[in-house]
Amino acid sequence: MKKVLPNTFDQSQAGALDARMRTLIERRQDLLGSGYSLFYSRPLEIVRGEGVYLYDRDGARYLDGYNNVPAVGHCNPRVLAAIERQSRLLNTNTRYAAEPILDYAERLLATHVDELARVMFTCTGSEANDLALRIARTATGADGVVVTANAYHGTTLTVAEISPNLGLPLPGNVRVIAAPAAGPAAEVGETFAADLSRAIADLEASGGHLAAFVADSIFASDGLRADPPGFLAPALDVVRRAGGLYVADEVQPGFGRVGERMWGYRRHDIAPDLVTLGKPMGNGLPIAGVVGRAELIDGFGDSVRYFNTFGGNSLSIAAAAAVLEEIESRDLAAHAEAVGGHLLTELRGIAASDPHLGEVRGAGLFIAVDLVDPDDGAPSSAVTQAVVNEMKERNVLISSVGPTGSTLKIRPPLPFAMEDAEFLLTRFGEVLETLPEASAGGGR
Amino acid sequence: MKKVLPNTFDQSQAGALDARMRTLIERRQDLLGSGYSLFYSRPLEIVRGEGVYLYDRDGARYLDGYNNVPAVGHCNPRVLAAIERQSRLLNTNTRYAAEPILDYAERLLATHVDELARVMFTCTGSEANDLALRIARTATGADGVVVTANAYHGTTLTVAEISPNLGLPLPGNVRVIAAPAAGPAAEVGETFAADLSRAIADLEASGGHLAAFVADSIFASDGLRADPPGFLAPALDVVRRAGGLYVADEVQPGFGRVGERMWGYRRHDIAPDLVTLGKPMGNGLPIAGVVGRAELIDGFGDSVRYFNTFGGNSLSIAAAAAVLEEIESRDLAAHAEAVGGHLLTELRGIAASDPHLGEVRGAGLFIAVDLVDPDDGAPSSAVTQAVVNEMKERNVLISSVGPTGSTLKIRPPLPFAMEDAEFLLTRFGEVLETLPEASAGGGR
Repeated sequence: MKKVLPNTFDQSQAGALDARMRTLIERRQDLLGSGYSLFYSRPLEIVRGEGVYLYDRDGARYLDGYNNVPAVGHCNPRVLAAIERQSRLLNTNTRYAAEPILDYAERLLATHVDELARVMFTCTGSEANDLALRIARTATGADGVVVTANAYHGTTLTVAEISPNLGLPLPGNVRVIAAPAAGPAAEVGETFAADLSRAIADLEASGGHLAAFVADSIFASDGLRADPPGFLAPALDVVRRAGGLYVADEVQPGFGRVGERMWGYRRHDIAPDLVTLGKPMGNGLPIAGVVGRAELIDGFGDSVRYFNTFGGNSLSIAAAAAVLEEIESRDLAAHAEAVGGHLLTELRGIAASDPHLGEVRGAGLFIAVDLVDPDDGAPSSAVTQAVVNEMKERNVLISSVGPTGSTLKIRPPLPFAMEDAEFLLTRFGEVLETLPEASAGGGR
Repeated sequence: MKKVLPNTFDQSQAGALDARMRTLIERRQDLLGSGYSLFYSRPLEIVRGEGVYLYDRDGARYLDGYNNVPAVGHCNPRVLAAIERQSRLLNTNTRYAAEPILDYAERLLATHVDELARVMFTCTGSEANDLALRIARTATGADGVVVTANAYHGTTLTVAEISPNLGLPLPGNVRVIAAPAAGPAAEVGETFAADLSRAIADLEASGGHLAAFVADSIFASDGLRADPPGFLAPALDVVRRAGGLYVADEVQPGFGRVGERMWGYRRHDIAPDLVTLGKPMGNGLPIAGVVGRAELIDGFGDSVRYFNTFGGNSLSIAAAAAVLEEIESRDLAAHAEAVGGHLLTELRGIAASDPHLGEVRGAGLFIAVDLVDPDDGAPSSAVTQAVVNEMKERNVLISSVGPTGSTLKIRPPLPFAMEDAEFLLTRFGEVLETLPEASAGGGR
C-alpha cells in the first residue's frame, strides 16, 4: 500500500488554484504521470534561487528552511565557477586517468575516521546504498538486513525493499526494529542495541545471516533521533558480533549538516564499515558514493565488475570539490552547529509555553519539532500541515516528517544565518497565533 | 566469477609505464580501490575535450571514435551555454512546479511512437532499467525476466542480476537466450522469437511468469546485432502473448546514434511497453529516464511512491533540452547514418581483402568489426587488443566488445565528420599493415 508523504499536494484540489498552476499540474499528469507529487496545498512554481532564497514566478521571495541538496546555498558562486570551468574543459569517465578525482577522494577521506580508506563514486544516494548492500553481501556471503521502522534508503528495487517508509511489503531477508527512543535518556543506546540483537536472532532463527545493519545516522525519516551522542556505539558492537557490516547512511546527515563533526556517525564516535553519501555532495549536481574499509572495497572490486558511467565524472568531481572546499573554508559545519543550536534553544523556549509544541530535537541545521493537539497532547498531522502551509504563505519553506507526519522538519542550506533563523522564528510565532487554542479543560 | 572487460589495463604491468602514470595508478588503488579499471595497455591521462577530440596531459590530440556519452561532442557550446545559464538561475527538484521539464518531456515524447505517452526521470541508465523492472513487476504481478546471453543493463543489484555480461550467478527468475544470429538473414527474427518463447516456457514450467523481456535494441554488449531492421517484431508478439512487458533498453542505441529513426526500437517498427534512456541524454550531465505507456506509468505511480532527488532537476533538464535541440537542429541522427554508412561500406571493402577482418556490421555511428586469426578465421581477442592499442598509439580512440572481446567497437560522438571517418580509416589501414600475415597455408 502506497504511503503518501506528508505535505503532498492533493491533486483533487487543483480546482482551487490559479489557471497557470492548474495548467502546469495537468501537463505534469499528462507527461510525467501520477507518480510526480508537489509540495504544499498551494504548490509553488519556483524559477530562481540564490543563497538561502527561492523565488517564485511572480517574484515573491521565500526563505529556504528546507532544502538540503543545495547545501552550500542555491547557485553558490564557488560551485558555479567550478561547474563553468570544468564543463568548458572536459567531462569524461574514470576509465581515463585523472588527478582531480584523486585529490578530491583524498580530501573527502580525510574527513572520515582512519579506518575508512577508500571511496567509490556513484550518482545518487540510492545507488550508493544499493552498492553498499552489494559490497556487504560480497563480504559476508549473507543477505540479511536490519533497518529502522520508518527508514528510507532510496529508490532502486533493492533499497526500496529495505525502506519501510515506502509501505511496500518487505522481503524475508529484511528485519525492522523500532527507531531509537525519543529523548536523551541514558538507556537509548542499550535499548536500541537490544532491539537490534533480537532482530538478528530472529533472522538467524529463520536460517538467515546478517549482511548489514543500515541506519541513517540521524534517523531523519523516523522523525530525527540525534541524542545522546554516542548512543549508536552498542549497536555497532552487536553488528560486529553477528558478523555483519555496519552501514552508516549519511545521505541526509552528512557533509556538515549535523555540526562540527561533519558526519552523523562521528557524533557517535563509531567507525562504521561502510558510509554512504549523497544529496548535498555536489550541491545539486548528481554525485554520491560509498566510503569504506579498504578490504571491503577491494574485496568487492576483485570479485565483481562495477563501473558507473557518470560516477566520478570530471564535472561531478569538480562540483563536489568546490562544495567540500566551501564547507571547509567557510567552516559551515561549525556554523550549522551554532545557528542550529540557537534555533533549538529558541524553539524549546517556545515549546515550554505553547501547548501546540511537543518535543524539539535535532543536531546542527537538522531540526524536528513535534506538533500536537493542544487538547490531548497527541501528535497532530493536521496541526503540522497547517503550520507548514501557513509558514509558506509567510514566505518560509519548511516541511514535515516522521511516521505520522506530525513533526516539522527544518533543514535549510548550511549558510542559513542567525538573522535567517530569527526571521523563521518570527514567522513561526505568527503562525502559532493563527492556530486554534486548546478548548477549555485541554492544554497542559 | 568476475569477467574482466576487454581493453582493460592490467595493473601488474604498471612497471612499464612512466613515473607520473605509475603514481596516478598507485593513488587510484589506494583511494578508489581495486574496482577502478583503466582503458588501454598504456592508459591515457585525459585533461581536455573539444568536439570529437580528447587531449592528454602532454597536449597530444586523439580522435574520439569511442565515447557515446558526449553524444553531441565534448564541451558542446550549446550544452555549455545551457548549463551555465541554468546553474546561475536555479537547480531544484520536481516537488516544485516548473515549465522547462514539461517542455522537454513533450519534445522527448514526440520522438517516440504514439503509444509511449509518459516519461519518468532518473539519473542513470541503471536507475532507469531498475525502475522499468519495478514498473513491470507492478503491472504484471510477476518477476520473471528474459535477457540475451551477454547483455549488460547496469549496476544496481537488480539490474546486475539481469546482466550476464558481468559473469555473476543469475537468480532463478532470470532466463537467458542467445543473442540474435549474426547477419541479415530472413530467419533471424523467427529464430530469436522461438528462443524467447522457449525461455518463457521454461520460466513458466518452474512456476514463474514473465514480467519483462529486456533487450538493448542494438545488442551492444552481445557484439552488435542491428540487422535486418524489423527482426524484433516477432519477439514483441511472443512477449505480449506471455503477458509480459517489452522493455527496450535504449541507453546505448538511443538519441540518434543508430541513425534517422532516432531510437533502436524504431528501426524495428515496434512499439515497446517501456523504453529506458541514459548515457547521451545530457551529454555527460547525469540524466536518464523511462518512457512508457500511460497506464503502466500511472499504475506504478498510483501504487508505489517514487521520488528521485536529482531526477529531472532543473540543471539536468536544461542540459538534456540542449542535447535534444542540438540533435534535432543539426540533424545529427541523419548525419550519423550517413557517416556511419560510409564507414560500414569502407570497412566492408577492407574486410573483402584483408584476412584479419571478419564480419562488419552496425547502424549509424555504432559499428562492430570482428577480428579473426588469419590462419583459421577464428575470432581473435589478441588481434583485437593489438588493433585497439595500435590505433590509440596513432591517436584514434576505439575499443572492443562482444562475448570474447574479439570485435572492434567504433562509437564516436555524433558530430564525427566524413573527414574524421577518413582519418580513422587511414590509421586503421596502417595498423592492419603491422599485424602478422597469415602463415603459409593459412588465410582464406
